[in-house]
Amino acid sequence: MPTIVVDVMPKAELLDPQGKAVSGALARIGVESFTDVRIGKRFELTVEGEVDDDVLATARRIADDVLSNAVIEDVVGIEVVP
Amino acid sequence: MPTIVVDVMPKAELLDPQGKAVSGALARIGVESFTDVRIGKRFELTVEGEVDDDVLATARRIADDVLSNAVIEDVVGIEVVP
Repeated sequence: MPTIVVDVMPKAELLDPQGKAVSGALARIGVESFTDVRIGKRFELTVEGEVDDDVLATARRIADDVLSNAVIEDVVGIEVVP
Repeated sequence: MPTIVVDVMPKAELLDPQGKAVSGALARIGVESFTDVRIGKRFELTVEGEVDDDVLATARRIADDVLSNAVIEDVVGIEVVP
């Protein structure tokens, strides 16, 4: 069954305490390859049947209205995985 | 700066209460296009400089050891975004 993947990240201008915690943990175990870590959410929406324009429009709408909080988050990707 | 994106999802055989909650919320507002919702995490690791094999190997290692819990989660994707 096709899946629509919606990616949501904290806005760039906001602190991401979870990401900072992981960043600190990596430094403590000696991993220095990464200068920053940010943590967002990945939603997998299962679609029964075909992904037509209607379904995609609905996915875009709920990505903005339900799956993310526009005050603190950005929807960074909506992708259909067949 | 290049970013390595690591996607982590709850294992398929496990319940995903957060996803179920969103699924229920969608049903209540009349959205019926999606039969299932699962919620995972998306990590963005910023790399200063080039992403070589070493950095990618480190990313794979911390994806398994630090960013995910193998008991309940799967690493479903590691991708370099230039």
